[in-house]
Amino acid sequence: MSETARTTVTVLGLGPMGRALVHALLDAGETVTVWNRTPSRAEPLLRQGARWAASAGEAVASSPVTLVTVVDHDAADAILSTAGPALEDRTVVGLTSDTPGRARTTAELITAHGGHYLDGAILTPAYTIGTSSASILLSGREELFTTVRPLLRKLATPTLLGDEPGRAAAFDVALLDLFWTTMSGYLHAMTLARAEGIAPNEFLPFAHGIREILPAIFDDLADRVEHGRHDDPTSTLDSVRSSLTHLVSASQDRGLDSAALDGLLRRVRDAEQAGYGQDEISRITDTLQHGRTAPASSPTGRRDPTAVSSR
Amino acid sequence: MSETARTTVTVLGLGPMGRALVHALLDAGETVTVWNRTPSRAEPLLRQGARWAASAGEAVASSPVTLVTVVDHDAADAILSTAGPALEDRTVVGLTSDTPGRARTTAELITAHGGHYLDGAILTPAYTIGTSSASILLSGREELFTTVRPLLRKLATPTLLGDEPGRAAAFDVALLDLFWTTMSGYLHAMTLARAEGIAPNEFLPFAHGIREILPAIFDDLADRVEHGRHDDPTSTLDSVRSSLTHLVSASQDRGLDSAALDGLLRRVRDAEQAGYGQDEISRITDTLQHGRTAPASSPTGRRDPTAVSSR
Repeated sequence: MSETARTTVTVLGLGPMGRALVHALLDAGETVTVWNRTPSRAEPLLRQGARWAASAGEAVASSPVTLVTVVDHDAADAILSTAGPALEDRTVVGLTSDTPGRARTTAELITAHGGHYLDGAILTPAYTIGTSSASILLSGREELFTTVRPLLRKLATPTLLGDEPGRAAAFDVALLDLFWTTMSGYLHAMTLARAEGIAPNEFLPFAHGIREILPAIFDDLADRVEHGRHDDPTSTLDSVRSSLTHLVSASQDRGLDSAALDGLLRRVRDAEQAGYGQDEISRITDTLQHGRTAPASSPTGRRDPTAVSSR
Repeated sequence: MSETARTTVTVLGLGPMGRALVHALLDAGETVTVWNRTPSRAEPLLRQGARWAASAGEAVASSPVTLVTVVDHDAADAILSTAGPALEDRTVVGLTSDTPGRARTTAELITAHGGHYLDGAILTPAYTIGTSSASILLSGREELFTTVRPLLRKLATPTLLGDEPGRAAAFDVALLDLFWTTMSGYLHAMTLARAEGIAPNEFLPFAHGIREILPAIFDDLADRVEHGRHDDPTSTLDSVRSSLTHLVSASQDRGLDSAALDGLLRRVRDAEQAGYGQDEISRITDTLQHGRTAPASSPTGRRDPTAVSSR
């Protein structure tokens, strides 16, 4: 397939993020081909100058670079498979959030058809697209990144994390994990407060107080996990277990779901039963992953007590 | 019991927090009686001028005000019950973290013996005690708070939240809920990142990026829950479910516990099945509490569609 490209960039998938990308690209003076499973979504974009392609294959053939923002990699792979030989010598930038494993299989699909693949993850909401505060993490070959960077900078600040295709998705899932579990904890705390007669706006300033102590704690816990240093606690796992037990009980007193607290309490108890009751909560990074209950530093499941004096 | 007090303040319980309180009180020129189930813990404090009492009852009788910092309210009630008639006309400030319900039963125990009770929760670590950055939330009668405030200000910044005895504990459990679920999410995310070959110190700057977007999100979600405004989403529950499904899958690919994510995913699905798939995640505050699946604003389980145009 050596059809001459008619536009500079193609966008497959016209959900809120896809539409934001097309708007920003048109605003930046790019010529844009679009395709979406439901054609009606494209209409406002066509009035603004985007070009419609009758199929995903025609859309990919129309530009040297194709950005893909569909619901997940199953959808992306299904659409890209229909493009088939049109992928040859084309560059595809996957901007669909999924697992690192699925990013790798999409990379294999594209390269099997003679195309080039960069996997990406957009970290910021659609309304940030077109500004430097938007952030896209990418993984793939550096020369490919260098080629598409001028285009991506019209959309966001792009950061290359390495050439292993799953690496951007790995950062993405870990950051989404942090984001959604924090949201879940905040919403659970607000629900518990409300059940106790505390209105959300009464709770809010105190919640900000908790949020404000996070920077130093994030630094400290990353350092502890990086160096396996869990044994000089600011609060021990035994005291965390006591606190969590009250939280589960207070939640149940008010008929609240306590799945997240129950799960954390189980991991804290695992670590206590492995002999780590006097360690910091960072120790649970060893028990969260099955089969990693014993830390790498100690084959007996407990650290060498003489190690304390050697530090 | 009308024994004359011999010190200005008594501290029951000499764990890390109790010892920090005694140090700060002695430093501030108070005379202090101490008692602990294990007497040896008191020795360094006695050398610094604290006075030992042979029983909890003698300790309570020795001062007009007694601060209690033991492991939980079961322990506090057991100790205070042995004090019995010594509680008459004495003021007890409970500084033990527990559930709102247990704070109420301790209040009843003290008042049944003719004593006065303020329930308190210390929000900050022991090393902050004696500085204004230490924070104590209290609930109980305002005149009682006014009486003990000068003493408490030598330890921390005290805030009275109302006269219902369980109110300080209610704020405390909700704030601890937020704190520990956030810690749990951060440690889980770091474990997932590490399993994908991303070191904690590589992950840290991106985690700070997520943390930095929290202030506006905390404000927005509190406002949504306060006003039941879940229907103009920045991301819909359907898209959150898709994202969470990837996170659970990515966790399981690496053998990680996914209890917190599984629990959140169940509540998101509950809300979708109740017809709220196009709403904001703040909607789950209705499904986290059992028996509250239908929002107060709609007896049919779905909001009145005409309400949208009336806003």
